[in-house]
Amino acid sequence: MERIALFPGSFDPFTKGHEDIVLRGLKLFDKIIISLGHNSNKSRYFPLEKMVANIEEAFAGVDKVSVITYSELTAELAKKHHANYLLRGLRNTTDFEYENSISQVNRHLNDQLETVFLITSPEYASVSSSIIREVHKYGGDVSDFIPYKL
Amino acid sequence: MERIALFPGSFDPFTKGHEDIVLRGLKLFDKIIISLGHNSNKSRYFPLEKMVANIEEAFAGVDKVSVITYSELTAELAKKHHANYLLRGLRNTTDFEYENSISQVNRHLNDQLETVFLITSPEYASVSSSIIREVHKYGGDVSDFIPYKL
Amino acid sequence: MERIALFPGSFDPFTKGHEDIVLRGLKLFDKIIISLGHNSNKSRYFPLEKMVANIEEAFAGVDKVSVITYSELTAELAKKHHANYLLRGLRNTTDFEYENSISQVNRHLNDQLETVFLITSPEYASVSSSIIREVHKYGGDVSDFIPYKL
Amino acid sequence: MERIALFPGSFDPFTKGHEDIVLRGLKLFDKIIISLGHNSNKSRYFPLEKMVANIEEAFAGVDKVSVITYSELTAELAKKHHANYLLRGLRNTTDFEYENSISQVNRHLNDQLETVFLITSPEYASVSSSIIREVHKYGGDVSDFIPYKL
Amino acid sequence: MERIALFPGSFDPFTKGHEDIVLRGLKLFDKIIISLGHNSNKSRYFPLEKMVANIEEAFAGVDKVSVITYSELTAELAKKHHANYLLRGLRNTTDFEYENSISQVNRHLNDQLETVFLITSPEYASVSSSIIREVHKYGGDVSDFIPYKL
Amino acid sequence: MERIALFPGSFDPFTKGHEDIVLRGLKLFDKIIISLGHNSNKSRYFPLEKMVANIEEAFAGVDKVSVITYSELTAELAKKHHANYLLRGLRNTTDFEYENSISQVNRHLNDQLETVFLITSPEYASVSSSIIREVHKYGGDVSDFIPYKL
Repeated sequence: MERIALFPGSFDPFTKGHEDIVLRGLKLFDKIIISLGHNSNKSRYFPLEKMVANIEEAFAGVDKVSVITYSELTAELAKKHHANYLLRGLRNTTDFEYENSISQVNRHLNDQLETVFLITSPEYASVSSSIIREVHKYGGDVSDFIPYKL
Repeated sequence: MERIALFPGSFDPFTKGHEDIVLRGLKLFDKIIISLGHNSNKSRYFPLEKMVANIEEAFAGVDKVSVITYSELTAELAKKHHANYLLRGLRNTTDFEYENSISQVNRHLNDQLETVFLITSPEYASVSSSIIREVHKYGGDVSDFIPYKL
Repeated sequence: MERIALFPGSFDPFTKGHEDIVLRGLKLFDKIIISLGHNSNKSRYFPLEKMVANIEEAFAGVDKVSVITYSELTAELAKKHHANYLLRGLRNTTDFEYENSISQVNRHLNDQLETVFLITSPEYASVSSSIIREVHKYGGDVSDFIPYKL
Repeated sequence: MERIALFPGSFDPFTKGHEDIVLRGLKLFDKIIISLGHNSNKSRYFPLEKMVANIEEAFAGVDKVSVITYSELTAELAKKHHANYLLRGLRNTTDFEYENSISQVNRHLNDQLETVFLITSPEYASVSSSIIREVHKYGGDVSDFIPYKL
Repeated sequence: MERIALFPGSFDPFTKGHEDIVLRGLKLFDKIIISLGHNSNKSRYFPLEKMVANIEEAFAGVDKVSVITYSELTAELAKKHHANYLLRGLRNTTDFEYENSISQVNRHLNDQLETVFLITSPEYASVSSSIIREVHKYGGDVSDFIPYKL
Repeated sequence: MERIALFPGSFDPFTKGHEDIVLRGLKLFDKIIISLGHNSNKSRYFPLEKMVANIEEAFAGVDKVSVITYSELTAELAKKHHANYLLRGLRNTTDFEYENSISQVNRHLNDQLETVFLITSPEYASVSSSIIREVHKYGGDVSDFIPYKL
């Protein structure tokens, strides 16, 4: 049976830390679907369609990776795509406690769904989407933190 | 002297984790007042009056538990109700650090006020109000996470 | 029904942080039994019988507090003393995670046993028994950290 | 290519929390080798050979799981068994920080070695080997915490 | 070479905890520039210019301390003021993880910039700007938490 | 006045993470005294005198750094060397909580003594002395983790 994993997030923006998790996840999964959640009530800093294109550029030539957008429960999205795994990165203990809660609830909503964690490589662990937005807003150079050209 | 405790929170919504703390707190206190803080500037997802009714339904027949709403300092509310205790649940270390700060400030504002903590039972520790709101917003079934019918 | 709490620990030594928890716990419980666990395999720095006397001195005149030693499961000790509560202090997140585990196991072993937590007052939160032993071993003055004369 | 994972630990004793991780890991890996590290300098509470037999009993009939002992670097053991994955469970933030360090060092020593984490199910997260040893030593019943008969 | 440090923050409001860090930092630095970041998109609770005046009042007569406002990257501000240090206080582990990320990114943006941390004194560690705003909003007395008159 | 800092530890062994903190600390202090605590009751893995020589080799030519051994209270050692600062590295939240306690007690024992923290650079944050001992004991190559030849 094919091992299909969702890699869900808002990716506002997608970072080199996210890329690190996807690339390492490719050793575990036959297919990884990068899934950008969007929510009509929350506005993004980096536009959704542009970010999809950016991520597709970053994984150009990597057949096992695809990029989609969604606005439903992650547990439901997984069923639709026959994905039995969620892939998630952990950077620090704050991430851990949040992911712990989310993963228990996802397993409750879809008992076939296992969340698999990799720890973000140290050189990327300080790079969060929110810090990148902050740096970008004030005109700083963020190209070292993202795996594509803005 | 009667041991009266406030159980303060925004309860948007009240969860089975909250119920767990109240039920276990009944062994410690003669009276527990579930106190829904509301704030004219922050909008709720689950309407305040509806939530009061939901919680009352959950504790129907439990005389020692009552439900009120308030929009003042918790430390002041406690004085008004002759409550010398705040009852709080701890789910994880993030909760701990927040509650630590709040409890010191409450004791400073009202030196008769002791905050008493129980650790949320493991089966409920992953259930947060914010995750329930998220699941509910996307049409997921949240009935396993709350002790009343929505 | 009388509310009896055990306050278990190795208390090597008993600190002002421990005293803080007991004194504040007196508002919650009718009786607090300070229970020094001892273990024939682990050697203490401060002798057991001397420490019992020190703690008794610290609570001289406080009828609701007594001091005992034990070498059995805490959950069993509680049954023997008709104690339905364990009183514990939390200083920081490391304490929290340890106490979380212990309290779940104690509740499993004795389902009448509820662990009640107070957060140690900030001025005592840095005072651990192990730091006091270290300071004392090198001849430092520890009298500010303990509620009795050594 | 076969996906082979080591599940390393001292397992003194192997707990239901460990079993939970192995059973869930079977969906990810073709083969899981439970690897009991032993160290001539540290004495165990539960004898090594007895524990191997206990774990084998717990996984009797599960062909994809085997049990070995070792006394070398985990990163070396992995090479010997053509294992490209370490499987590890995370119970709380203390585990996270320890595992974070170990996994970085293991990847440094063997750059083919990826550590994959699952979060322990909440009902087992409070069960640690050290607490079980403590309960057992004082004659408490630990049968609910282990997946075999002692 | 003069040791110049920025002490950046939104200081909404500046607390006794902040004052504690600045006063202790004076032993390390020849000059400390308290730098109030402002952001046209985020509204403050305590007006910016009023807060600048309040902080100046708190450090009246302390020549080594000055107060400025800024709306640029902290790493850029540091260059402009020939500051090679950022001074930051740590209250708890949540602070630590946030500051860890920010400091790595700042060092990336300005490799001359070192972030130096002091741990907030325990008596002030529970005092956060957000709790003070909450207490003030409901009419509570916050004068014990701030080093100036509002 | 000269700014003299102690950098205390057991350094069993001194790691590249320790070196990182000392090198970055040189921008803050006029003199850093690397101080190896030894304790007749605890045995070391790497012999004390050999480690002193190793560290001296690592800082050969760096006049502002010296290396000593001591077996007294750190707070007392500081007085003897006219050091008003302790320099410490923080790697993660577990470090933070330990260092928080130690620094409060040190300030209590010597009110002139300020503990100054730098956060360990991410590439070294996973390298602990205990992991290096473990790797070395089993014959692994630790040369990438230490700034001298063993």
